[in-house]
Amino acid sequence: MARIKVVQFGLGPIGIESLKFAATHASLEIIGGVDIDPAKIGRSLDELTGVSTLRGARVFDSIAALLASGARPDVILHTASSSAAASLAQVRPALEAGISVASTCEELIFPILRTPKETAEYDALCRKSGARVVATGVNPGFVMDVLPICLTGVNRRVDSLYVERVVNASTRRQPLQAKIGSGMAPDDFRAKFRAGRAGHAGFQQSLGLLAHAMGWTLDSVEETCEPVLAPATITTQFFRVERGQTCGLHQRAIGHVGGEAKIILDLQMFLDAPNPHDTVVVKGDPALHLTLAGGVAGDSATVAALVNIVPRLLAAQPGLRLMTELPLPSWVNPQR
Amino acid sequence: MARIKVVQFGLGPIGIESLKFAATHASLEIIGGVDIDPAKIGRSLDELTGVSTLRGARVFDSIAALLASGARPDVILHTASSSAAASLAQVRPALEAGISVASTCEELIFPILRTPKETAEYDALCRKSGARVVATGVNPGFVMDVLPICLTGVNRRVDSLYVERVVNASTRRQPLQAKIGSGMAPDDFRAKFRAGRAGHAGFQQSLGLLAHAMGWTLDSVEETCEPVLAPATITTQFFRVERGQTCGLHQRAIGHVGGEAKIILDLQMFLDAPNPHDTVVVKGDPALHLTLAGGVAGDSATVAALVNIVPRLLAAQPGLRLMTELPLPSWVNPQR
Repeated sequence: MARIKVVQFGLGPIGIESLKFAATHASLEIIGGVDIDPAKIGRSLDELTGVSTLRGARVFDSIAALLASGARPDVILHTASSSAAASLAQVRPALEAGISVASTCEELIFPILRTPKETAEYDALCRKSGARVVATGVNPGFVMDVLPICLTGVNRRVDSLYVERVVNASTRRQPLQAKIGSGMAPDDFRAKFRAGRAGHAGFQQSLGLLAHAMGWTLDSVEETCEPVLAPATITTQFFRVERGQTCGLHQRAIGHVGGEAKIILDLQMFLDAPNPHDTVVVKGDPALHLTLAGGVAGDSATVAALVNIVPRLLAAQPGLRLMTELPLPSWVNPQR
Repeated sequence: MARIKVVQFGLGPIGIESLKFAATHASLEIIGGVDIDPAKIGRSLDELTGVSTLRGARVFDSIAALLASGARPDVILHTASSSAAASLAQVRPALEAGISVASTCEELIFPILRTPKETAEYDALCRKSGARVVATGVNPGFVMDVLPICLTGVNRRVDSLYVERVVNASTRRQPLQAKIGSGMAPDDFRAKFRAGRAGHAGFQQSLGLLAHAMGWTLDSVEETCEPVLAPATITTQFFRVERGQTCGLHQRAIGHVGGEAKIILDLQMFLDAPNPHDTVVVKGDPALHLTLAGGVAGDSATVAALVNIVPRLLAAQPGLRLMTELPLPSWVNPQR
């Protein structure tokens, strides 16, 4: 069988992890990378990753430049933006050429929510060219959407969904500890959230995907995000947070249908959070109560979700696809 | 939108539940039933179910007779056999006519395991006629196969899978309490299991489907089934079990790859079992530990899984399909 030709778009920490992981798969052949960083353009991917088998695969400043070089990937792994509109614009030359895209873009988990116009436009483009696009990940992409939806496959009746995720941010990398406001004055964090520059991305998309799968039309979504205050000084590898300063966030979104709270998503990410876990509660028939002890750590598993979705994506119908439209997620054995 | 025309094949307790549940779905139109019971043939489905909207939908003794009457279903809900070969033979006239089949047949969860010849033959037949077949359920079909596979979608590495299901059989219907050997002498139960007439059906199929999804070639499968002995007299609605008699079973299957135990399924179904639950443990990166508190009760949820899969099945490629080849399972809102 011919190997699947892969290009990695975005060579930040997640992109490099994605490349390294994809390089372990016998069925994948990495043929290039794309990044706008002048320090990376033109370099060979083995230099950037330390993976010697990637020698000869070069970094281009755009997909257009990559295609102009004669490279012809089957799929782009995209890890370069949280914005659906920006992500779609970035990969447009690939989509026009019928090349599929798997992305970690949070807004693309349920793109119709924020960018209905672009969703319709790019969906039509993909159907014409034969390309497929899907976004995946851990959150959004799994814990708060795909997993609860999968669970309801055995439900006769679903009255409401509740998902709770508690992350001990002390065990996570620097950007996450920064993102949750570590060390900020509580009011500064609140102001930053109100300005749309703090908080977990993809929350509303998870909620939208859940409502879509349940056939519920939301009449309103209420979202709050409060800082969690350090009860005492907390020191991590990256931050020192004094008592009373922000050590994380408590974000909550409630989706209402007919005045009833049908979907509640509750996310707590803070330093030294005790008992990290993911919990899904389905009220209905049967009632279901699922817990993932310890939770699913985001970064490393996000890269796995991205690479694991590739064969499913390439077998799907052309268009902008949702995770609910692709076959059951599964680990892909790298030796196969 | 035109409603999906449904025929129910098998009018035992599960079949009747399936009919009643399907009747609540706005998108489904029940147009007939099939059963070999002379007491049911020719009767109207409203008499058998108490659902008045099913008046006029009649019971035929075979699919051939139903088709000869001019009925033209889109899908057959099949709940009439645990044997893949028998099930496929029962629905053959439908498949020849391009009509799809959703089944609860345990062996059809992974039919290549026991009936490779029939699997190839019927798969070819379906690809030619445009029909699709899939089997689903709770166990097999969800707890010990689909759910663990879905979970591994976020895995970089899977070293082994362990699934444990503990069912308190005292809360379940009579046939299940009988199936697990309630009231039998322990040696009689052991002899019955050795003769292939006791134990949980579909265990090996779940294991086969897991191995298939993980890309593992099993070199051996070891299966054991021991009676659980009543520690004191147990009285249920249906059985009285004396101390020392069989009050249930403990069944275990281990799949080996390269001499290593890669998949372990452990099923305990006994009267008054404490702490019923379903647990999935994925060893690998990340390590995952999932628990469904209380577990997922089989019968009612099996009917839900069967009806919920219908739209996914009808959108799938023709052929004998596995649950891993269909889109993510989901509840189907009956009002849609």
